[in-house]
Order: sequence, then C-alpha cells, then structure tokens
Amino acid sequence: MKFKLGCDLEYKILEETVFIFNFQVAKLQRHKALTDSLTLKPDLPVVDYTVPDLQNRYIRVLAQPGDFSVHYTAEVDLHVHRADPTGVREMDVRDLPLDILPQLLPSRFVPSDRLADFAYREFGDFPRGYERVSAICSWIYQNIDYRRGSSNSETTATEILIRRAGVCRDFAHLGIAFCRALGIPARLVSCYAFGLSPADFHAVFEAYLDGRWWLFDATRQAALDGLVRIGVGRDAAEIAFSTPFGLMEAGPINIWIERADGEPEPTPRTTDAISTEEPAPNAGAA
Amino acid sequence: MKFKLGCDLEYKILEETVFIFNFQVAKLQRHKALTDSLTLKPDLPVVDYTVPDLQNRYIRVLAQPGDFSVHYTAEVDLHVHRADPTGVREMDVRDLPLDILPQLLPSRFVPSDRLADFAYREFGDFPRGYERVSAICSWIYQNIDYRRGSSNSETTATEILIRRAGVCRDFAHLGIAFCRALGIPARLVSCYAFGLSPADFHAVFEAYLDGRWWLFDATRQAALDGLVRIGVGRDAAEIAFSTPFGLMEAGPINIWIERADGEPEPTPRTTDAISTEEPAPNAGAA
Amino acid sequence: MKFKLGCDLEYKILEETVFIFNFQVAKLQRHKALTDSLTLKPDLPVVDYTVPDLQNRYIRVLAQPGDFSVHYTAEVDLHVHRADPTGVREMDVRDLPLDILPQLLPSRFVPSDRLADFAYREFGDFPRGYERVSAICSWIYQNIDYRRGSSNSETTATEILIRRAGVCRDFAHLGIAFCRALGIPARLVSCYAFGLSPADFHAVFEAYLDGRWWLFDATRQAALDGLVRIGVGRDAAEIAFSTPFGLMEAGPINIWIERADGEPEPTPRTTDAISTEEPAPNAGAA
Amino acid sequence: MKFKLGCDLEYKILEETVFIFNFQVAKLQRHKALTDSLTLKPDLPVVDYTVPDLQNRYIRVLAQPGDFSVHYTAEVDLHVHRADPTGVREMDVRDLPLDILPQLLPSRFVPSDRLADFAYREFGDFPRGYERVSAICSWIYQNIDYRRGSSNSETTATEILIRRAGVCRDFAHLGIAFCRALGIPARLVSCYAFGLSPADFHAVFEAYLDGRWWLFDATRQAALDGLVRIGVGRDAAEIAFSTPFGLMEAGPINIWIERADGEPEPTPRTTDAISTEEPAPNAGAA
Repeated sequence: MKFKLGCDLEYKILEETVFIFNFQVAKLQRHKALTDSLTLKPDLPVVDYTVPDLQNRYIRVLAQPGDFSVHYTAEVDLHVHRADPTGVREMDVRDLPLDILPQLLPSRFVPSDRLADFAYREFGDFPRGYERVSAICSWIYQNIDYRRGSSNSETTATEILIRRAGVCRDFAHLGIAFCRALGIPARLVSCYAFGLSPADFHAVFEAYLDGRWWLFDATRQAALDGLVRIGVGRDAAEIAFSTPFGLMEAGPINIWIERADGEPEPTPRTTDAISTEEPAPNAGAA
Repeated sequence: MKFKLGCDLEYKILEETVFIFNFQVAKLQRHKALTDSLTLKPDLPVVDYTVPDLQNRYIRVLAQPGDFSVHYTAEVDLHVHRADPTGVREMDVRDLPLDILPQLLPSRFVPSDRLADFAYREFGDFPRGYERVSAICSWIYQNIDYRRGSSNSETTATEILIRRAGVCRDFAHLGIAFCRALGIPARLVSCYAFGLSPADFHAVFEAYLDGRWWLFDATRQAALDGLVRIGVGRDAAEIAFSTPFGLMEAGPINIWIERADGEPEPTPRTTDAISTEEPAPNAGAA
Repeated sequence: MKFKLGCDLEYKILEETVFIFNFQVAKLQRHKALTDSLTLKPDLPVVDYTVPDLQNRYIRVLAQPGDFSVHYTAEVDLHVHRADPTGVREMDVRDLPLDILPQLLPSRFVPSDRLADFAYREFGDFPRGYERVSAICSWIYQNIDYRRGSSNSETTATEILIRRAGVCRDFAHLGIAFCRALGIPARLVSCYAFGLSPADFHAVFEAYLDGRWWLFDATRQAALDGLVRIGVGRDAAEIAFSTPFGLMEAGPINIWIERADGEPEPTPRTTDAISTEEPAPNAGAA
Repeated sequence: MKFKLGCDLEYKILEETVFIFNFQVAKLQRHKALTDSLTLKPDLPVVDYTVPDLQNRYIRVLAQPGDFSVHYTAEVDLHVHRADPTGVREMDVRDLPLDILPQLLPSRFVPSDRLADFAYREFGDFPRGYERVSAICSWIYQNIDYRRGSSNSETTATEILIRRAGVCRDFAHLGIAFCRALGIPARLVSCYAFGLSPADFHAVFEAYLDGRWWLFDATRQAALDGLVRIGVGRDAAEIAFSTPFGLMEAGPINIWIERADGEPEPTPRTTDAISTEEPAPNAGAA
C-alpha cells in the first residue's frame, strides 16, 4: 500500500534548546520508493544519524529563542510480509540469535523481571507461538482501559497493571513485558498508523517468533498492515519523537497519513501475521 | 600491568538449563596479550557472540541435569590511558556523538528521568567535567553504606537513595543515574578488580567526558588502573555474569586476580583519570 | 466452640530491647469464659494497654541482654454470630457510621486509593453485599499463589497484584484494598486459626456490611467460625505480634490451637456469614 | 491571639455526591471562645461527628445535582502553650504512653519503616529532643523545593526524597517519616495559618516530645503560634478537608484568616516551642 504522511511540530524556544528528533520514516527494505522532505523554520543545520540494523533515523537540531517549527512529509510504498499466524512458532532461548537477547531483558518502562509469575499464571498454558502473543494482546485489550491522560512519561508496565488504564505506549509496554517474562524477545515500535483516529504517533510492539519480528497492537486501533515504522527500541525511552534539552514550550502537533494510491478506504482488518522486517541475521545462533 | 585472573562457577542442574554467561575478559585494544582458557565440566558445546564495538563476550551453554562447573583463567597486560583529571571537560549534548545518546536514557535500574531536580540541586553548582563526576562519587561514598545483602536483583538507583545502603552495582547505578540526569552519558562496567577484598566480580561505571569513556568507582574499593573489563551495558540487566533459563541451584563462586609480572604489591591508588577504551568514533557528531 | 491455644516465643537479646507484643486473645463479648496466662523468663515487669472499642491487648516489656522467652496459654469459648450471607447487604457511604470511615482510607500496606479502576472493573458488576466481598476473595484465591517467603515486611497490596504470590497477610491486605476501593470499610484481623496447617499466627480480614463486621479469609485455609481474634487494625503495621526496639535475634516460634470441649475433629467448613463482634454503635450515623 | 477565619468552597454536582468535610476549627481547650457558623447552599442536612480525644470535626452532607456551596466562618482566641525548646526532651519508647504508639507506625504516605537507615545517618548524631526535630525541619527546608503542582494526591514521603520537590503536606509527611523512623511519634496537622501567603489550608506536623505534642513546620511559611488547628491524623489520608464520593467538579476555594483583636501585624516569628494541646493522659504509661 502506498501512503502519504507527515507531521508538523511547533515550539516556542525560551532558551537555546537542543532537540533530538525521531519522526522520520525508517529506511527499511519494505519501505519501497521512500521519498521524504524535511523543512525547518528557521532553516537550521541538522545532524543526522541512522542506527545500524534498526534503521532508526535520529536528527539533532540546535534551536535559538523564538518560534521554531518542523514540517515533515513522506511517501512510501509499504510491502509487508504476511504469514498464516498458525504456523508462526515460538523459539526456545537456546535457539535465539544471541544479538537478540537484549530484547529479553527488562528496561526502564518494562520491568519484565518482576512479572514472571504473573505471565506464567495467565499465559503459561496457551499454545506457544503467535497464538500466545495474541492471547497477551487480548488480555490487555480486555483488562486495560484506553484513556487519554491516564498515564504520564514515567508510567511503567507494572503501574499499568495496577491502574488498569493507559494509552498506546502503555498497552505496548505491557505486551512487551509479558512477552519478555515468558522468554519471548519483544520491543517497542513507533509508527504512523493508517486508520488511527484521531491521527497521532502510534506505538505498537514486535515479538520475535520463528526467526523474525512480528507486529502486535494490543489497542486494536489500527490495522497491522497499515503501520509505517519510525523507530524501534527497548521501550519508549529510546524512541521518543522529540527529546528536548533546554527551555521551550511545545505547541500543537499535527500528524497525518493517507492512502496515496487512489485505492478506496481500507479493506477489513487483516488477520494475517504481519512483519515489516527481513528475518534477522543469525548472529550468534547455534 | 600484567594480571592473572579467573573464576570458578559451580551449579547443580535440576532441569535442562540454558546459561548465558558474560565473565570472559573483553577483547579491548588495551587488553594486550590476552590469552584465556575456558573449561566446562561436562565438556558442553558453547555458542559465543561478541558485541560489536562494546566487545562484551557472551557465551551460551545448554546444561543437562547433574553437576555443572565452569573454570576460566586469563592473562592480560592492561595498558590504561591516563590523563590529568583537571583537563577532562564535560561535553554539551549538542556535541555528543549521536550513537552515544542511548547512554543518556533511563534504564531498568537507572530511572535517571526521575532524578533531574535532585541531581541539579546537589551537583549543579560544581565545575563541569571530571570534577563533577568525582563529586558525585564522593557524595555516594559519604551517603550510602556499603552493606552486603542490603539490596537484591530488583533494586533500582532510586531505591538506594531511600535505603541508603547497597553493594557495588548499586553504587554504580546511582553514579550513572546522577550523570545521566545531568546530561552526562554513563554506563555500567563489570570487571575483575585487582585489590578488591574479598575478591568478587566488581561493578563500576564509566562517564563519557571529553570524547572518551572514563572509569569511576564510587565504592572506592579498588584502584581504577587495576580493573580488567568484562562487559559494559546500560545497567546490570545487560551484563550479568550468569543469566540462567531453567531450574538449577548455584553453588559457590570463586573469583581471583593477581599481578602476573612479579611486581610487588600495589602502589598507592592512582589519582589519574583512567580510561581503557579508545576515543569513540564520531558517529553522528556535528 | 471451646479452644485451648497458646504461643511460645524465644529471643536472644543482644542489647536492651523494648518489645511491644500483641498476641493475647482479645477480650470480646463473644470470647466467653476467657482465661489466659502469661509467663516471661526472666520474669520481667509488663505494662499493658487495651485499645478501647477494638479490645486489642498490647503489652510492653523491657528485656536485658541474654535469653528471653514468652509462654502464653488461653482457654476461650468462642460464640460466633452467624447469618445467611444472602441477606447481608452492602451499605452506602451516606449511611455508614462516621467513626468507621477511617477503615475506608488507604493505609501503609493497603494503597486502596490506587485501585479504584481495577476494583470497579473486576467487581463493579457483582451484586452488592456479602456476595461481592466473597467474589473478591475468590478472585484473590484464584489469581494469587500462596507461597511462603514470597513477600516481606514491606510488601504492599499493589505489589502483590504484580507478583501474584504472597502469604496470609498479603491475601488479607489485597482483600481490604479492593473493599475500600469499592467503598466498603475493611480491616485486618490477626488470630489463632483452628485447623490451620501448619499452625501459625493467621491474618484474615473483616468487611463492614449491614451494620457489623464480617470475617473473610481469601486464603481459604481455615474455617471462619474457628478464628480466635488477637487484634484488628488498618493493616499489618498496627497488629504485629511482636514489635521490637533494640538489638536481638528472634528464635523459633510455636503456636497452637485445639478443641477444648472433647468434640471430634471439625465439621465441614461453614458457609454461614460469621461475625465475632456486636453491631457497631452508631457514632455519627445519620 | 484572636483570629477571624473561614473558607468558601464551591462545587458543581453532576451526580448525587456524599461529602465528608473536615474544615471546621477543632474544639480544643486552647481554642478559647470559639464561635463558628456554617452555611450550605442549598441548605442541606448535616451529620456531624467529633473524634474523641483528637477533636477533629467531620461532617457529612449528601448533595444533589446542581450548584453546591459551603461558607464557613469562625472566631477563636488561640492560647498556645510556650516553652524553651532547649528543655524539651525526647522520650524513649519504653516511656511512651502505649496509646501514642500508633503514631510511630508507617502509614499510607509515610512509609517510615523504609527510612530507618536514612534517618539515623542524617540525624542520629544530633542531640535528642526538640533540637533533633528542628534539625529534621532544617534538612527538609534545605533539600526540598517548595513547588506548587510538583506532587499529587498519591505522593509519598519517600517519593519526595527522590523528586526533591513538594508542597506543604509533602514537607510535613517527610518530617513525620524521619521522626517515626527515629522512634519519635509524629502526626499530621491541618490548619488555618496566619500569615501564610497566599492563604490556603496549611499542613504542618506535630512530634511527641517530653509528654506532649509540639508543632513543627518544615516549610517555614507560617508562625507556629498562629496556627488554628482543624484536624490531626496519621497522614493526609485522614484529614482531607473534603472527601467526595460521587461525580462533581470542584470550583474555586477561598480561605482566609486575620487578626481579630485590633493588634498590628505580626510580631517577629516566635522561636519558642509551641503546643496547642494539653499533655496526653498517660494511657498505658509505665
């Protein structure tokens, strides 16, 4: 599917501020024919850095006091990999590539080391594989309220289990937490999500099954084959769309994504297993 | 300085267990003439993986029920980089290589995002640079008790601030937390520490100043120029010497390190700034 | 039912230690024919205090270095109040006696203020009354593992929701937390529990319904009509059987309770609603 | 000193709401010639309850949808008890009245059981008595920022130690926490505070020394001899000025207190030790 998308960010800079941004579409193989354009006002110099393997694109900008705005647009032809979920097997830790193991470890917002008992109680008896991660998503969907403003930038997955309310990043953090607690590598994905209403940066997660990363969205708010990836990381700490160092006020944000291929509105939600990345190279595999 | 060192680990395996180990000496340029030897009983196959750049060496072993032991020895000639601390400047986030930025982010045991006010209150007025990180170490040394058994595998740096007691990894986590809160990249280092009594795996931290990583030890238990590195990571989650998946009982651990060059016992503690790594390549620098 | 019961406590006092004890049977109206006997070795002076209304009996002893032991025995004829659970109604906060309102408030181990969403999600649709508190107990029984050593003296009810394992006081704290979050006053009860195996001090909880306090045990380990009350409090902080101030080592504890009336072993578990206290006087009621 | 004071509260009731209020001046012996007046609009029936001993006055009102306002005024002649701080001794737990012991226990917002090491590290070497509690207040004043909006209704004293910012109730909770950790009974006091700017409900704390309760204010925002007490409790959970059960929106609050005796503006801050309560009856004292 071809998409047009973009975002507009506005800031009032009070004192010199360094921004690290991560809102550009990742340069994945499955993001075909990607073209994009970035406009800053004023037109400041940009330092960019693309993370090897992950392909997250970070830029750094030094903004001086006054108004500062960012305008980004992109076009991309998203070719997802599809599979029958029933054939997607779970892997044993003895078979995982060793470079993927960090995605089994607890992180700032995902203290999965504290959830082993919980995870095995709730999900230990499910058939291992895609189905088990789907069961995790269903549990989250049924037990957590999606509620704007119910969490903040410090909220962890365990806190969500107590409060029973959160937003997309909290749903994803909790999915990651249960996966890691069960021995399934998992990581956070930020993206432009076709069909998400209202439009916003979206967060979903990926679990590593059967030799590749598969997308999951416990919020059920967007189709898995309409997610254009920005970044992946262990949790939200790594892939904030904007990390400012300095004194400034953030203004309104505008995010959008639409079909660019003249196709009619979306078909029914896919039930396929969806991946947007190639199988991981087997660094350190047996 | 030339060192001989090693460790002996013993386990009673109750059910098939996968181990990820990280106790081997890192293959750093400054670890000259490194030779080492690993013996497993029984003699099981080993999958190994060295993290690019960091040089952490992980191995994976699948152990069957029964006794399982690990015997590791190494010899290494440690050539540290020395500098006058007074000339080691702090860097602004605008000048940091972008690939180092993840070391500014909060992690599982280092929720530095919660400590900004605390860090600026206590250390905001110190001269920026090596001296400021030294002040952090002194504060920790003076305000936290070193007490075996006072913390556990889930203890975070913020918890240590409440309890006021911890072990080496807690001291290091707290140093990292204050550094990151002040905008100084920092990370955990596991090592064999010459002179540490009783001998044990030691944890210290590195702060990124003036274009390279410098060692700090808030416990003041070992000389900075006698630390032979095993691994570096965001926090203890990444560099546990042993991460088992399975049912087993850990037996006694024996760790040792001694001078291998016939030199007499250690000279007085160095007051130099010490680094064991080359300046970072400037990925994403301005 | 007539019971004989008692406890033996042993301590090695290292430095002068003040003990506050609360292990004596409460002087309730429904504890008929209560006789008891306390022996201290050495024979130290005792300061005692009985809390008005609650009838908790606290004693204070000042012990000098050396061995110190406590031997307590009691006989009591327990006359519980029984009712058909289906007729026990929940009360609206507008009808509660105002002196009972503190039992709606969060306390150290029962942060019920954080559980409102959770409680209404899980238990909001149940019929109000005894049945709803029973549903809370069933949920706890089904979702939390009873596991010795899985919690410690600092463990809160919210922590138990994450860990999914605890002991009797944790089960009771969680029951209290859900009740208070739903607007039902609840409090902790320490007791000698007939039939508990192995014998130990037991903790259950009481909920205030239909004008009186009713017993609930989410662990399902003892019959509600075989609980001889020691103390009641907001949570475990208030009714520890021993609160020492000083340096000492606690030795083995022996607790016992048996039928004193020559009756055969216990009949099937009662399904009645059980209360051991008279209806509360209506201080501040409408 | 004679004071006139009062408060105006406004609510928009959306669904039937039960309020428990605690804003009336406590009927203490040292609150001489107390007269007060309460006006509700609409004029709803009030259920009142005064806690024995403490003299906290709670009222309950059932408000129907629509506007609801509370207007309260009082006049009182405050006769504080004054003493030379240097003569106010600390008491050993062996000498405390047993009915005061609950004020040594941890509570919802004051987890003092976790702060023993911290408290003894910072305050263990101070002379015992009034001076030590003063040192606690000075430490809090110097190490915590007073900042509106920096904490919320769930913030605990330990959280304040990490964040290093809070409001009056947080300062008081922290003072209570350190006192209890040191074996000094302490409790929260809500009050009208003469000279507080801007006027607001104020929270300070009392420590039990030398047989009576003494006032302390770690915020240093008001004179200790100008505090007209509303309520005392273990922590803020017990003495909220308004605890609503129902759906409503709170409007603006107006609080005021002024001299009623024609005296000029306040004299310099007192350095006396100040108490507004008689020595506690020695329930359970040795």
